[in-house]
Amino acid sequence: MPYVIGLDYGSLSCRGILADVRNGCILAESEASYLHGILTEHLPDGTTLAGSWCLQHPQDYLTVLDQILPQLLSKSMIDPDAIIGIGVDFTASTVIPLDAQYKPLCNTYPSRPHAWPKLWKHHGAQPQAERLTKLCQNMAPDYLSWYGGKISSETLTAKVLQVFEEDPELFHLTHSFVEAMDYVTGLLCGKPVFGGSVAVAKAMYSRQKGYPDAEFFQAAHPQLQNLPKEKLMERYENGRPVFPGEKAGTLCEEMALRFGLPAGITVSAPQMDAYAAIPGIGIGKPGVMLLVVGTSTGIMLLSEEKKCVEGVTACLPDTCYPGLWTYGSGQASVGDAFGWFVDQCVPEAYKTAARQRNQTIHQYLSEKAALLKPGESGLLALDWLGGNRSCLGNADLSGLILGLTLQTKPEHIYRALLEATAFGARIIVEAYREAGVPVEEIWVCGGIANKNPLLMQIYADVLGQSLSVSSCTQASALGTAIYTAVAASGGDIFETIQTMSDRHRRVYQPNPANFPVYGKLFREYKRLHDYFGKGENAVMERLRTMAREAKQEC
Amino acid sequence: MPYVIGLDYGSLSCRGILADVRNGCILAESEASYLHGILTEHLPDGTTLAGSWCLQHPQDYLTVLDQILPQLLSKSMIDPDAIIGIGVDFTASTVIPLDAQYKPLCNTYPSRPHAWPKLWKHHGAQPQAERLTKLCQNMAPDYLSWYGGKISSETLTAKVLQVFEEDPELFHLTHSFVEAMDYVTGLLCGKPVFGGSVAVAKAMYSRQKGYPDAEFFQAAHPQLQNLPKEKLMERYENGRPVFPGEKAGTLCEEMALRFGLPAGITVSAPQMDAYAAIPGIGIGKPGVMLLVVGTSTGIMLLSEEKKCVEGVTACLPDTCYPGLWTYGSGQASVGDAFGWFVDQCVPEAYKTAARQRNQTIHQYLSEKAALLKPGESGLLALDWLGGNRSCLGNADLSGLILGLTLQTKPEHIYRALLEATAFGARIIVEAYREAGVPVEEIWVCGGIANKNPLLMQIYADVLGQSLSVSSCTQASALGTAIYTAVAASGGDIFETIQTMSDRHRRVYQPNPANFPVYGKLFREYKRLHDYFGKGENAVMERLRTMAREAKQEC
Repeated sequence: MPYVIGLDYGSLSCRGILADVRNGCILAESEASYLHGILTEHLPDGTTLAGSWCLQHPQDYLTVLDQILPQLLSKSMIDPDAIIGIGVDFTASTVIPLDAQYKPLCNTYPSRPHAWPKLWKHHGAQPQAERLTKLCQNMAPDYLSWYGGKISSETLTAKVLQVFEEDPELFHLTHSFVEAMDYVTGLLCGKPVFGGSVAVAKAMYSRQKGYPDAEFFQAAHPQLQNLPKEKLMERYENGRPVFPGEKAGTLCEEMALRFGLPAGITVSAPQMDAYAAIPGIGIGKPGVMLLVVGTSTGIMLLSEEKKCVEGVTACLPDTCYPGLWTYGSGQASVGDAFGWFVDQCVPEAYKTAARQRNQTIHQYLSEKAALLKPGESGLLALDWLGGNRSCLGNADLSGLILGLTLQTKPEHIYRALLEATAFGARIIVEAYREAGVPVEEIWVCGGIANKNPLLMQIYADVLGQSLSVSSCTQASALGTAIYTAVAASGGDIFETIQTMSDRHRRVYQPNPANFPVYGKLFREYKRLHDYFGKGENAVMERLRTMAREAKQEC
Repeated sequence: MPYVIGLDYGSLSCRGILADVRNGCILAESEASYLHGILTEHLPDGTTLAGSWCLQHPQDYLTVLDQILPQLLSKSMIDPDAIIGIGVDFTASTVIPLDAQYKPLCNTYPSRPHAWPKLWKHHGAQPQAERLTKLCQNMAPDYLSWYGGKISSETLTAKVLQVFEEDPELFHLTHSFVEAMDYVTGLLCGKPVFGGSVAVAKAMYSRQKGYPDAEFFQAAHPQLQNLPKEKLMERYENGRPVFPGEKAGTLCEEMALRFGLPAGITVSAPQMDAYAAIPGIGIGKPGVMLLVVGTSTGIMLLSEEKKCVEGVTACLPDTCYPGLWTYGSGQASVGDAFGWFVDQCVPEAYKTAARQRNQTIHQYLSEKAALLKPGESGLLALDWLGGNRSCLGNADLSGLILGLTLQTKPEHIYRALLEATAFGARIIVEAYREAGVPVEEIWVCGGIANKNPLLMQIYADVLGQSLSVSSCTQASALGTAIYTAVAASGGDIFETIQTMSDRHRRVYQPNPANFPVYGKLFREYKRLHDYFGKGENAVMERLRTMAREAKQEC
């Protein structure tokens, strides 16, 4: 009776499951929020942060396990000795500067912002990302081709460069810059772990070629010539990457004791949270796209071939399954944008009405928005409140709402924001198709996908294609459990998916009357997308620069 | 001891003053709201209205006087026999269809939307306005030159054409389409009154040439050939217009009795509400601009010459003072836009905080917005929530907010909206200057101008010029009292202004550090203004059309 534990580290909390290897049944689940949440305005000691910073507290990554792991054991009532493995998926790229003792540098330098882990959506490294892109164009075009022609500010490489430039002293005090998923997996194993899939996706690493050569890093800055060996995962003796489904190590005595698990069980290679959902909901063949809709949307597409798709953030070998390419792309703010709207823009009367009806404000707004026809709001929005990840790759873009009148109501804007994210998804789907990469089937997972049927119907109507919305609420954790089962048993990943994944779903069919109206609106969206996003009027970037300057003067 | 009464009919209420002719002192003021307010969604009997409709109830225009006039008498405690005149200013063009008995047609046809008075900001007549503009280009270019090259959907002519096209039967049942100011003044006199200034400004009337000729109206439609004689003020025997400062008639017995005033006193010619403010705050020379900032902003500029200023809604002779041209232009939504924002977009926490501090939500938001530097919000807005009056003359344009991020707060958007109206004002000021019309001095009046010092400081900073904000809270009513004093006494208007106007003001100096930053933002504003407003991307108009179509399907 073998069991595995999958741990899914999100932006605000960690969720763990305990699953049966024979059928994928989840015997227990548990969730714990990070005590410090996301640090955007101040460090814990009060030090002020700049506008686009998003940090986390590394302590939180372990303390959540003190809660989750005992709960999984007590809820499932299984014998801990029946557990054969544990694995981690995590947001990426979330980067922790460590000292030589594998301790987060922020323990020693709590007042220095750059000593703290930078969460994936920390967007302070945009200038560095742009310089890296230029450098790649000249010196490493093959690397660039994996990233859709642009290095994102969310990558580890850009974030490391930001530290080097903005706090060189701290850069030199740093022993290594480590992905949070590697850090946590490393703690479990009691030795550094080098996660291959995240390195390929976020750190310009190639299984065949390694990191870019010294000449490349020297061109970035003479002092960076040996960056991989001096500050990245090549720093460690066992600098060999492990890929999802492989074994990263075994659970060390200290952690086994702390959490009440058997020492020596398999710890599997870490995976990026969005990618882990793919096996979780049973996707195992080319042509299937998965949208993981959460605060942001991660979009993955499996393919047998590598083709150049402009603006897609990654086309990576072996990140999900051996032998298949995984295209990765995404939308920077989806649930985040809806959350921003209900927090900052919804009037008292609506909140009161929702309370009276015992609805969440999202439910109340969705109910009102569902009464509107496509086009009726008269509004069109650009969903770039967190920047644009695909296909423009520019974190300095920003949100727009157009068509406001004195008659505009909150549900109009709410619906326009839902629609904008659907248009954003369609831009990405069309980019793949135009590049000749088939998108035959579309799956959606994530909390919002199940909570908001209006959103899913709009996606089906905008995409003009039926959508399978997975009912699995623990897709990433289950995927991680599957990887872990493979790593522990040495079984075949595709067979294990057949056994363990959760294929339950609700299908949304496109409304034939809405598709052409959305076609019209999509063309308008595309035109604004190109006008503001492709350099014709770079007003969004200029406004960001002005805002930064104004804040610095304060 | 002679006194006059000035009545200022706004969009939501009427305000009356009783003033001393010898020094302009206001002895009493009184205000009454229209019982039916503005009808935008339903007629009183429940009939649904289309999206851009704004109607009023004609009953309200007299019933407010039942409250105001007795109050003026009781508050001032003067002998009614010392009153020598009464006069009216009014929103324009607010148009009432009347029957042959000078009764509003909606009394007889309460379920027909077109039978009701259309308020100035009723924007249903945009297609008619566009056709009139084209017609003028071909057949009456001189008329067009008074209106900045465009006939507005707010004009009487466009509104009448809308009735003709959308409800021809009702059009034929209408004896005459009359300006509300003429209607009320006519009721006071007991005979129809033809207000000259509003006819010049809103009905394509010229003191020299009258209305356009039969050929023009025939081209609009063969049945309209004799429109002025059949449906407009030429319908009436005494079809001679009276201009502000002139006598329209004398107070009839019926009204004198109803309101407790002496019969036979002077009733002065009506004036448009924004124009009436000019004498009220003592503006009597060329080169002085007045911004009347309210729900919308009316901008008037006196000049000795007529020059062609593109997009300015009017350049009219004799509308304000004999012998001077008054340029009229405006911004369709100013206070309205701020009001929309606080009603529809401000979260509960802000409303609660404002209440706790005993502040209005505007005060609370202004206080927070005042802490931001120019550019710091990262936002840029187009202030077209009610369309654009000047210099684009297109009611189908709409509002835009650009630069939104997940960090955007309500005070950021609030400030961006304030700034957008300031940029809109600067567009108009620059249009005059580019056309060679001097703008030497800028005055501002209106409730918002005194209530919101942040707004006025932003205007001074954006315009780069000192602003005189009149402290007179009854500028239009006082101006109407001045016109009435002139009409009753036969005195000189400019001398009477010296005696009676209220020149108290607060001066705002531009902040030299902010002006260049706003210069940068203004260039961005101008670029979006031209892109969306001058046809390069007519997405706003297309979205309006789609919204109308979607609503019609419902």
